Amino acid sequence: MARAYEVDLDKNAANYQPLTPLTFLARSAAVYPEHTAIIHGGLRYSYKEFYARARKLASALAAAGIAHGDTVSAMLANTPAMLEAHYGVPMCGGVLNTLNTRLDAQVIAFSLDHAETKVLITDREFSATVKEALTLTKSAKPLVIDYDDPQFDVGGELLGDMEYEAFIADGDADFAWQMPEDEWRAISLNYTSGTTGNPKGVVYHHRGAYLLAQGNAITASMQKHPVYLWTLPMFHCNGWCFPWTLSVIGGTHVCLRWVRADAIWQALAEHRVTHLCGAPIVMATILNAPDDDKRALDHVVEFFTAAAPPPEAVLAAMSEAGFNVTHLYGLTETYGPAVVNDWNAAWDALPPGERATKKARQGVRYAALEGLDVIDPETMTPVPRDGETIGEVMFQGNIVMKGYLKNPAASAEAFGGGWFHSGDLGVMHPDGYIQLKDRSKDIIISGGENISSIEVEDALYKHPAVQAAAVVAKPDDRWGETPCAFIEVRPGAELSVDEVMAHCRDNLARFKCPRHVVFAELPKTSTGKIQKFKLREMAADV
Amino acid sequence: MARAYEVDLDKNAANYQPLTPLTFLARSAAVYPEHTAIIHGGLRYSYKEFYARARKLASALAAAGIAHGDTVSAMLANTPAMLEAHYGVPMCGGVLNTLNTRLDAQVIAFSLDHAETKVLITDREFSATVKEALTLTKSAKPLVIDYDDPQFDVGGELLGDMEYEAFIADGDADFAWQMPEDEWRAISLNYTSGTTGNPKGVVYHHRGAYLLAQGNAITASMQKHPVYLWTLPMFHCNGWCFPWTLSVIGGTHVCLRWVRADAIWQALAEHRVTHLCGAPIVMATILNAPDDDKRALDHVVEFFTAAAPPPEAVLAAMSEAGFNVTHLYGLTETYGPAVVNDWNAAWDALPPGERATKKARQGVRYAALEGLDVIDPETMTPVPRDGETIGEVMFQGNIVMKGYLKNPAASAEAFGGGWFHSGDLGVMHPDGYIQLKDRSKDIIISGGENISSIEVEDALYKHPAVQAAAVVAKPDDRWGETPCAFIEVRPGAELSVDEVMAHCRDNLARFKCPRHVVFAELPKTSTGKIQKFKLREMAADV
Repeated sequence: MARAYEVDLDKNAANYQPLTPLTFLARSAAVYPEHTAIIHGGLRYSYKEFYARARKLASALAAAGIAHGDTVSAMLANTPAMLEAHYGVPMCGGVLNTLNTRLDAQVIAFSLDHAETKVLITDREFSATVKEALTLTKSAKPLVIDYDDPQFDVGGELLGDMEYEAFIADGDADFAWQMPEDEWRAISLNYTSGTTGNPKGVVYHHRGAYLLAQGNAITASMQKHPVYLWTLPMFHCNGWCFPWTLSVIGGTHVCLRWVRADAIWQALAEHRVTHLCGAPIVMATILNAPDDDKRALDHVVEFFTAAAPPPEAVLAAMSEAGFNVTHLYGLTETYGPAVVNDWNAAWDALPPGERATKKARQGVRYAALEGLDVIDPETMTPVPRDGETIGEVMFQGNIVMKGYLKNPAASAEAFGGGWFHSGDLGVMHPDGYIQLKDRSKDIIISGGENISSIEVEDALYKHPAVQAAAVVAKPDDRWGETPCAFIEVRPGAELSVDEVMAHCRDNLARFKCPRHVVFAELPKTSTGKIQKFKLREMAADV
Repeated sequence: MARAYEVDLDKNAANYQPLTPLTFLARSAAVYPEHTAIIHGGLRYSYKEFYARARKLASALAAAGIAHGDTVSAMLANTPAMLEAHYGVPMCGGVLNTLNTRLDAQVIAFSLDHAETKVLITDREFSATVKEALTLTKSAKPLVIDYDDPQFDVGGELLGDMEYEAFIADGDADFAWQMPEDEWRAISLNYTSGTTGNPKGVVYHHRGAYLLAQGNAITASMQKHPVYLWTLPMFHCNGWCFPWTLSVIGGTHVCLRWVRADAIWQALAEHRVTHLCGAPIVMATILNAPDDDKRALDHVVEFFTAAAPPPEAVLAAMSEAGFNVTHLYGLTETYGPAVVNDWNAAWDALPPGERATKKARQGVRYAALEGLDVIDPETMTPVPRDGETIGEVMFQGNIVMKGYLKNPAASAEAFGGGWFHSGDLGVMHPDGYIQLKDRSKDIIISGGENISSIEVEDALYKHPAVQAAAVVAKPDDRWGETPCAFIEVRPGAELSVDEVMAHCRDNLARFKCPRHVVFAELPKTSTGKIQKFKLREMAADV
């Protein structure tokens, strides 16, 4: 009998279609054509217009030669063009590579080369960096399309041959976009700032994007027609897949070029925002706004944060201001969030301190993720559920990346033993909630951005007066963490804090530069290994 | 470059897992162990207990020899055993075949044979039918497990060697259930009452069950921890996949053995039910309850109905009583609902009559369905979107069945041209909403059950006094439709309405028997074809 359920019951076009988030936009355009899809300054695009503009972009890209597996890179702020790229690029078979606009020209140039970028859409705000990057690329010579935001005066200059609106103007609003041939096909490429060596290109596929898009709607309990404010950069893990989520339920995107307190509060009140995401720095921005900028909210706003556990005082202040904060966790390799601090209503009765302790835990898997555990990487067995034994956080499931582009060694290492190794260390509590304890890869997360301590150390070592350097995270109320540098000066040499700062700014993106510099002898083990845990204690007291 | 995104980026255990709704229950048991999963009379099962009981069932079935592709049939009411079967059976690789408890012994016997049932779980309420069916099977000799409901006195007798609770008592609560090897594997089997010949066995797979389970949560805007009342029989398309949906969001199942007004109102008020589904007859039951049974509700209850468009008066009365009614449409072949009357808030401003007209339309595709159209089956081109041109409603996507079991000819016919042919006739409105106009397969839907007019006619023709017979749907406020029989009596013979009724009860399940019998000459075309549309007009006036 086993065979009976497997014969003459094959896949065909009627009962099998590749999973892709592109179908969500087509549906919302059909069902909610007049509903506002995008708000940007004074601009409003309905779902009918959003879909038409995405198809025009796809059509224009196809005319420019973009086809299956070609990379389109985007150096864009949270603007309509960025949302349109999330649909228009894959609609013609292209792969969307969103660039972190805070990175320096050298890293951007590396990405353009590695991704073999065919078309680059770039916002004129970032023209200085991009102009330099284009002189640094070794092989990539992309067609450059400038996005000249009609709503904001951003300075900068136009670099390419054509402006975005002109580029899509001739596109076909009825472009017959194609479903991916296979749901395993790549939809996007996100470079993760590696701790050593070059950034790695994390490849997402249509299947995972579809599943997390729906998973977000379910995890965030989003009803039909939510209003979502773009405080999270879309270049981070494709905005945690929310550009696709909103099309599942006909939501409204409220774009936000700059994450500024007055603009956030204005949007919250005027557009009746229901949901927003962001690193802890966004909460600080909201809370520290001048009183004149703040507005009374007539509804609870859902705020999803990641990167660092929300501290008790911040949670209390956010609640006071009208927000419900949910703590998420994930990595670029898991399409953004894959773990949620799924809140148990019984915990509401706990004293504030214990509530914050519960809230600080990273939590449990999304329903869209099949496996999450804390595992001893040596034996590949789960650690005891005691909240104390440290192991490595590992993931298994359909919202784990396809792999690293052109880097089979890194992919094989990441997927060893049939689990994705996050590199994050944590514990498993008796109730099945995980909590991070340390990061094994020396990552400092500042304002939601990953900073490699090793990269900063490498830059410090380039200075002739530096004999030894070590960089660790210093806890920071506003930024979550900031890099703190400890330096041993070469005997006979002289070095000032200002000199170190200037040297770093010449060699690193601004956000990676140490906020504090301490000249001291570095504590070492008997074998000469720097004891970073001691430095972290010292940094906390600086 | 196209190749770069396709090489060294293969599926592995870390980044690919079969989609299956079984993972949802595992998650809810881990995250909400103490939350109430099932309410049944005075019984309460937490998610931890629900999961443990499902695993015990899986373990017991495995010990009884059930493995990949073996059929377990269930003749069950909406009880905990039925919910457990939705997980326990596929957890050991089995395929769940839910039997329509309203069918007669002959049809049940056919299903047991055709499905090659290895194990039958049967509620003692239905022992008379099942006992007879077991004498009628030609090849199936299943192990029979009786479900003897501890909460309700249902009469009947025990037929098998073991009672359900005893059967699972020795099962392993930690049974290491297996993920399906492939998400395309069968998870369940639902027999559809065919219009001619034998019932067809509709096969569902894990992938589709996963996607519609999530799709329901999204379409129904279900927040975390909804409370769902089981007014819809779970033997209908696996309860439209809601047995799996609730595990996505940690919902509470409120079981309901009998769809009676007092029990419904009591559950609505006492358990604060948020969602329920049912045919129009359920709305009639709710509304026509004695005033003493009705309760004031302190929240709006979401009611999802299908099978027939809700009439204006019913909508108004439901609204008055505290319900928001959403109209769905689908077929057994589409896992239940795949189309939703997605409500546009602007329509709220329309006069009641126009609102009801809008509400009567079947609507648009679920986000989980990739294609829905009204198509000319001859040319396979979509009909004009004019709300007038009639075509056949066709589906395309991942929530369309795997096919008909052991019936490749029927599968091929249903999937002709890469679309699933519903057999339902409808129109496409200019705004993209479909509306059914007639059913091409002579189905009468009474109280949510499909009745084949041809089957009833066949039964009538067996009576020696019947010369010609035709059965059509007669609109009915309570049942939606009822079968109305038109009979030409053989010259010289005599026949009374009572004789016809008695004859039908001997040959048909009770719910299929005509409610009205009219002796008349049948209107025919010049070629002798009976003009059913004229009979429908006549039936409406009976």
